[in-house]
Order: sequence, then structure tokens, then C-alpha cells
Amino acid sequence: MITVALAKGALLKDSVTSFANAGLDFTAVLDPDNRQLMVPSKCGRARALLVRNGDVPVYVAYGQAQLGVVGYDVLREHQMPVAQLIDLGFGGCRMAVAVKESSGYKRAADLPPHCRVASKFTHCAREFFDDLDLPVELVHLTGSVELGPMTGVAEAIVDLVATGRTLRENGLVAIEELFQSTARLVGHPLSLRLDRGELRTVLEDFRLQEKNSVEL
Amino acid sequence: MITVALAKGALLKDSVTSFANAGLDFTAVLDPDNRQLMVPSKCGRARALLVRNGDVPVYVAYGQAQLGVVGYDVLREHQMPVAQLIDLGFGGCRMAVAVKESSGYKRAADLPPHCRVASKFTHCAREFFDDLDLPVELVHLTGSVELGPMTGVAEAIVDLVATGRTLRENGLVAIEELFQSTARLVGHPLSLRLDRGELRTVLEDFRLQEKNSVEL
Repeated sequence: MITVALAKGALLKDSVTSFANAGLDFTAVLDPDNRQLMVPSKCGRARALLVRNGDVPVYVAYGQAQLGVVGYDVLREHQMPVAQLIDLGFGGCRMAVAVKESSGYKRAADLPPHCRVASKFTHCAREFFDDLDLPVELVHLTGSVELGPMTGVAEAIVDLVATGRTLRENGLVAIEELFQSTARLVGHPLSLRLDRGELRTVLEDFRLQEKNSVEL
Repeated sequence: MITVALAKGALLKDSVTSFANAGLDFTAVLDPDNRQLMVPSKCGRARALLVRNGDVPVYVAYGQAQLGVVGYDVLREHQMPVAQLIDLGFGGCRMAVAVKESSGYKRAADLPPHCRVASKFTHCAREFFDDLDLPVELVHLTGSVELGPMTGVAEAIVDLVATGRTLRENGLVAIEELFQSTARLVGHPLSLRLDRGELRTVLEDFRLQEKNSVEL
């Protein structure tokens, strides 16, 4: 039995479509009445675990799920020992430094040393500012990071930007990009090595999709 | 202007009632159509920041909010430098160790050394198992911790239990309590010391409520 960890939220619909194209039908998880966190596939060969974004690499790293779909941003932030298999292309967004539009800062290096930067992604932010050689105090927030500059708890934020609407609505502007993020298919390394064909079949169907979408 | 950090979610309604009784009316935040994260009180003397549970002590510790309402569980987990002012009594729950009912474990000390324990509250869990002198491997999850024992990623969990319904629905049973939790009014220490009467008035009204509810 293959277990697949799927992230609730923005990536779920496209994740289900990708797996459906690879022969595993988890459409039951999209039913708004579904309250179950462990949902069998239509064929009965697999099951999906419905978990939070950040928990996908945990279940895959411990081998409780052999495969998972998760944003590259989460993989960069949490650095769990999972194998990155395929860039699925959907869920595109970018990790960016943003400041108040009125601040006048044009790039991250303009920020004053030892200023405060709020983020949910403090590991990524630490790496970025260390590379810049700019010492900043990171303030870890768990949500609504755009409140940071509005309340004065931080001068800048590091956050995911998709359409940019949240930034605009809050008078913020992105001034520098850390990296682009898309959804990734990840796997449990040991399960992949010990696989007797079950996972390979699914992965081949995924790679076929990838090839077709590149050709289109 | 007083700024108050309120946690979205289960504590919000009672938090608003408490502040209303203390003379600050934030009922606008309960409007399901409200999308704003910064909401003025009816009287205009104060504003509420609507943030995630875990972010309340951050805004209060940095002084961007002078007061906040947050569960004791969050205060124990994150250990931010905020002043605990009043136990508001609502939002009661307990932090507990739970295992599969079928496991036969009757207390935390029955767990095998080096077993895995899943939790959102890994700091609290670490403290508890260190006190027990029982070495365990903590698995940090961000949601749906009850999936831990179901999937086999962990033998036990440390999680908040309110009614116990989630545990029962997942075949789990609480075997030991770490501590009781209720909502707490917290304050920014420096703002409290520098206060010229504005905060004192609100706090006196809160203490009056506390007194009345004890007398009832």
C-alpha cells in the first residue's frame, strides 16, 4: 500500500489532479464534507494523508508516507531528509523581502543593520541576510506577517508572494527575491531504494506528465 | 492609544466579551465579514490586532501591543518576556500525553525509552519527559497531531485536550496531564511601568470582573 502525504490548502487540488494522471485517484479528499485525514484512493492501492504543508516532509522523512507533495519553500525552510523527485510546476510563488512602499528602500542591502525582519520562514531569511552580510534581528511570526511593518514590530518581512495582492493591500512592496517556489513531488529515500515496482510505476506516470507538459 | 493583541480562533469571542466588560468594545472583530487585522474599538481609544495564537506574546513582548489575550499553553511553550496579569478563566483545556487506547500504556513512564512522541508543543513535551528522566525522540508537527499514532510516526502525542472528542474519534486516550491551561491577560512590562493611567483603568475593570466572578 502506497501512502501519500498531501498538503491541505492551496496545493491540494492540483496535487490530486497530478496523482489522478499518475493512476491514483484521491478526488475524495476534495469533497467539502470530508472530515477524514486518511483517505483511500479509489483503486484501494494507496491512501492519502491530509496534513499541513509543513508536516508533509515530516511524514515522508519518517517513511510513514512514501511520497508527498509540498512547496519548495517548505523544503528550503525545514531541510528534512527527503528526496526531491519532480518539479510539478504548479503553486508558483516567490520568497521575497518586502518593505513599506513609503520606506524608500529599493533593495535588501538598503535596510539598516540590526533592523527587525518578520517572517514565518526565519531559516530562509537568516540564510539570505547572512549571505548579504547584513545583521538583522529576525522576529518569528506564524501568520499575517504583513502586520509586521504596519504595527512597527519589523521594518521588513520575508514572505511568500503569489499575486502580490496582500502586499499591495497593506501598502507593502517586494524589493528583492530570495527564490522561486513551486510544488515538488518528494519521496522517502529508503522506500524508493527498496521499492519492488509499485512506486516506480507511479513515478514513471509522473515523469510522463512532466514530459508532456514540457512538450506542450 | 492602547493596542490589544487578540488571538483568532477559539478564544476570540470570550476575549472580546472580557474587554467589553472592561470598557473597550471590539465587537467589530467578530463580524464574519471583517477582513481587517487592525480594528479600532468603538470608543476610538484603542485598537485590536487580530493575530494567530502563537503571535500574541510576540506583539506584546516587542511592545507593539500593550495588552494581549492568549492561552497559558502558548506562554509555556514560547517563553516570551511578557507579564502575566490575570487568569481570565475561559478557554479551559489541558496539555496531556495521549496514546492509542489499544497500546495498554497507563502512564507516561510506561512508554519505551527512545520512543517517538509527536507534538505541536515540543518545548513543553521536552520539559515533561526530561523531568520524568525518560529519553524520547520528539517529532514536531504543526497540526492534526492525532495522526501521529494512527500512521505510526509516533507512539504517543502531547497535545491540548478540551472535550476529548478528537482523541476518542481517533482511538486515543489521555494517560497523563502536563498542566491545565486557560486564557491569560498579558502585558508589555515596560508599557505597564510607564503607564500614565490609561492601562491601569482597563486593568482595574478586568480585576473587578475577576472579583465578581469569584464571588458568584
